[in-house]
Amino acid sequence: MKPIVGCVDVGGSTLRVALAAHDGTLLARSSLTHTRPEPGATIETVARILNELCRSADVELTAVGAAVPGPLDPQRGIVHFSPNLRWREFPFAENLQARLNVPVRIDDDANCAALGEQWRGVGRGVRDFLYVIVGTGIGAGLILDDKLYHGARGMAGELGHTTIMPDGPLCACGNHGCLETLAAGPAIVSRFAQLESGTDDFTARAVIAAARAGNVRARQAIREAAEYLGIGLANATNLLNPEMIALGGGVAMDAGELLLEPARRVVRERAFAAATDSVKLALGELGDDAGLIGAARLMSVDE
Amino acid sequence: MKPIVGCVDVGGSTLRVALAAHDGTLLARSSLTHTRPEPGATIETVARILNELCRSADVELTAVGAAVPGPLDPQRGIVHFSPNLRWREFPFAENLQARLNVPVRIDDDANCAALGEQWRGVGRGVRDFLYVIVGTGIGAGLILDDKLYHGARGMAGELGHTTIMPDGPLCACGNHGCLETLAAGPAIVSRFAQLESGTDDFTARAVIAAARAGNVRARQAIREAAEYLGIGLANATNLLNPEMIALGGGVAMDAGELLLEPARRVVRERAFAAATDSVKLALGELGDDAGLIGAARLMSVDE
Repeated sequence: MKPIVGCVDVGGSTLRVALAAHDGTLLARSSLTHTRPEPGATIETVARILNELCRSADVELTAVGAAVPGPLDPQRGIVHFSPNLRWREFPFAENLQARLNVPVRIDDDANCAALGEQWRGVGRGVRDFLYVIVGTGIGAGLILDDKLYHGARGMAGELGHTTIMPDGPLCACGNHGCLETLAAGPAIVSRFAQLESGTDDFTARAVIAAARAGNVRARQAIREAAEYLGIGLANATNLLNPEMIALGGGVAMDAGELLLEPARRVVRERAFAAATDSVKLALGELGDDAGLIGAARLMSVDE
Repeated sequence: MKPIVGCVDVGGSTLRVALAAHDGTLLARSSLTHTRPEPGATIETVARILNELCRSADVELTAVGAAVPGPLDPQRGIVHFSPNLRWREFPFAENLQARLNVPVRIDDDANCAALGEQWRGVGRGVRDFLYVIVGTGIGAGLILDDKLYHGARGMAGELGHTTIMPDGPLCACGNHGCLETLAAGPAIVSRFAQLESGTDDFTARAVIAAARAGNVRARQAIREAAEYLGIGLANATNLLNPEMIALGGGVAMDAGELLLEPARRVVRERAFAAATDSVKLALGELGDDAGLIGAARLMSVDE
């Protein structure tokens, strides 16, 4: 039987499982929706799906990589605390490894998406690569000198929780003026509601659709968020001088150039010319598969 | 004759030259003041001093590392543009190498100071280490995963030019609200002058001395700058999750805890608890020697 790597992407509402060829191509896949998944049951489900996929494809599972919402410890494979999943101190890698009898590695979902895009997506060949997820929140995966950068405790990448307005809106993290409070999906929704003097009982996707349909206030709400996003990206550009910043996540994928264009302009206005000239600001290419493909990469890295 | 490494620190007003043992101990040194030094003359002076030091110490020069204000290209040894020195596209390494007949490497002064403090100073053994210079401006050297991080074009580390107040004061770089405009020496001076309703015809050092002597407005000016500095350090803490941030530069060395204490408080208030708990905020230990020792390290790195 041909040896194969399994990959898993544990989202807050979707569980994705696939088999990946050594070059990152996804060969077979399965996904299901879940709400507040219990960790032990998730391990069972993942193991069952991987076994089924392998049986159907007549391949032998040799290793599994998993993208899990953090913060987590990639070395020890423990999910410290996942607000989305409500897991605490769960030894994900150890449990899945015991169940499948193959090596398992995990990493943060943003880190996996960054790895995926740098391996098989828009960031191929880029050594200093930032992948920024803009959705309900803002997070980032940092690939520096061609290596995933974790920081001292695996907490690196919290670009959404950098302050860009000292007296700005209160953030869920307790700080004021975090980039996330000004540029993520909920900020777009509440700004649009404010401009329309209406309720905020709709989604960022609906505001983006309204903008595309010509609603000037929807356009304004998105432009303002994109300009704040540009400040965060300009800061990352001056601090880290990346070769590329790729955007992913629901809001970025829906909004596309509506978000990219003003963000690019602000990066040009605020960051050093030499750093701006050398950074490419682009959309991710892999969409929802970035995390899965990056998870496969966790077990394919040549080191 | 014993082989030895030479090290050079080209400052805007001081040129330092020394010989360093393989463990980074400075064995013999010389320094002189200069203003707007011409690049060719600087090469001659450095070569002459190094030859003299070697002759006196009866040692043989095998390599030279030099800290030079950037931006520069460490790979090719070219100083792109140094606002302090007014040098442009000067091949420093090539010229000094031709003159001395030994390998020469150069790096940015902030990067060299970071290397020095991580090798022989406060950051010994720290893998993820930020060294932040607070003086007339604010710059940083980043050691990530135990390696100096340069970014795509050697421009990384411009923490002083991250925006922390979108409509803040105009910066020399053309942006508004850069950390540097709110937290570096000139910001302390102008805030103190504003509070005293006086002229700003004095130095940051004088304001710090006044604060130590009990002047409450001097204390306020320093505290406000330190709080802005804290925002910049909180942002770096959340983005990079370093194990230590060390402060150096004239203002930080003069002000010490007057600057550190409010900055530490703001980092605790604004950054994630897990990232804050794992980061140590300290003063550098090597003072003015950090750059020289780091320059020696450029030629001592085991790689």
